[in-house]
Amino acid sequence: MEGAIVLLCDIGNTSYHFLEGEHEYKKDAESFEPESIKERVYFISVNTEVSQKLSKLENWVDLSAFVSKEPYYETMGIDRIFALEGLSNAVLVDAGSAITVDVVRDGVFEGGFIYPGIKAMEQTYVKISPALAYSFNFELNLDKMAKNSQDAISYGFLKLLYSEVNSHNLPIILTGGDAKTLHKILKNAEIDNTLIFRAMKKIIKEAKLC
Amino acid sequence: MEGAIVLLCDIGNTSYHFLEGEHEYKKDAESFEPESIKERVYFISVNTEVSQKLSKLENWVDLSAFVSKEPYYETMGIDRIFALEGLSNAVLVDAGSAITVDVVRDGVFEGGFIYPGIKAMEQTYVKISPALAYSFNFELNLDKMAKNSQDAISYGFLKLLYSEVNSHNLPIILTGGDAKTLHKILKNAEIDNTLIFRAMKKIIKEAKLC
Repeated sequence: MEGAIVLLCDIGNTSYHFLEGEHEYKKDAESFEPESIKERVYFISVNTEVSQKLSKLENWVDLSAFVSKEPYYETMGIDRIFALEGLSNAVLVDAGSAITVDVVRDGVFEGGFIYPGIKAMEQTYVKISPALAYSFNFELNLDKMAKNSQDAISYGFLKLLYSEVNSHNLPIILTGGDAKTLHKILKNAEIDNTLIFRAMKKIIKEAKLC
Repeated sequence: MEGAIVLLCDIGNTSYHFLEGEHEYKKDAESFEPESIKERVYFISVNTEVSQKLSKLENWVDLSAFVSKEPYYETMGIDRIFALEGLSNAVLVDAGSAITVDVVRDGVFEGGFIYPGIKAMEQTYVKISPALAYSFNFELNLDKMAKNSQDAISYGFLKLLYSEVNSHNLPIILTGGDAKTLHKILKNAEIDNTLIFRAMKKIIKEAKLC
């Protein structure tokens, strides 16, 4: 019966993101104890602290070894590589603690960039000046420059991202924990939060792991 | 003889920026003691802590009262208002702890936005992940998406700013402490670090203050 239920886990800087059958759930990266799971878990991780813990647990199988990293760059997060493995023409926007943007055209990875996530950027503005302690206005009219402080930081963060993402003239795929929030600005994007899990299943199948 | 040497001071979040005749110098906002200056100083300040101190000193004259703030918005820093007072067709990029970008077209203020400064943004990336602890690459080729982490954060910070600033098809004026550094990216911009002081002199003259 071992392996009948495939447990997948995508580990980021702040959380473990599980898929068990159709059921998705998250656990806090700092407080969750991976020893508490006894069945086999196929995972990828960008969290070096967690990866170290997991290397000692036999039932946690790291899928990163089963993908060719040659088309990508050395320091690129394994989550980004997995997400891109399933796309052929897209701007992939992964909105988490960082917002990573990657471009695949005709199946070829063109490169990407890394932008701060929503929370990180809000904290940045607060730190610059208490007068900038606002949440971003996601209802902002992107066609007009700002005339108040909240809109001025919102435009700075959101309009610049919007323009760059749209400049590539490719379908936009939004994934990650803040996908729904960013969709208010990237209205033409398609939200897809199963991209990485689909890629993980594909890799498991190809590597005949179960 | 009082008033023969005009001492001007533009006070930001991190420093006092003085102009005494042709001589420019800066003092740290936290450690400098404004009581140490006995002659008259004409100043503007976006630093509320410093402003409070100065309100008790008779020889420090706040110039903000002598400008009409009507065309601008309520929470807009007085330094931005002063800088814009001297321009009629420009994108003004003021690169300090924050990078403020403001557009004036045919003498009318169209609005602007606020972006994090170089140091603030570098700290943001480090905080997201130690793997992003890089200085920005100002030699970056902006026409190519990034294929390594340093370029990925550099593109995220610099290319997005570059595109937005250039999208307005107006002359670009660069000012502030990081003007020279940002000029490596905004090569078509003109550096002007006396904009605010020129505006201060104009206001002093118009208000017949000396």
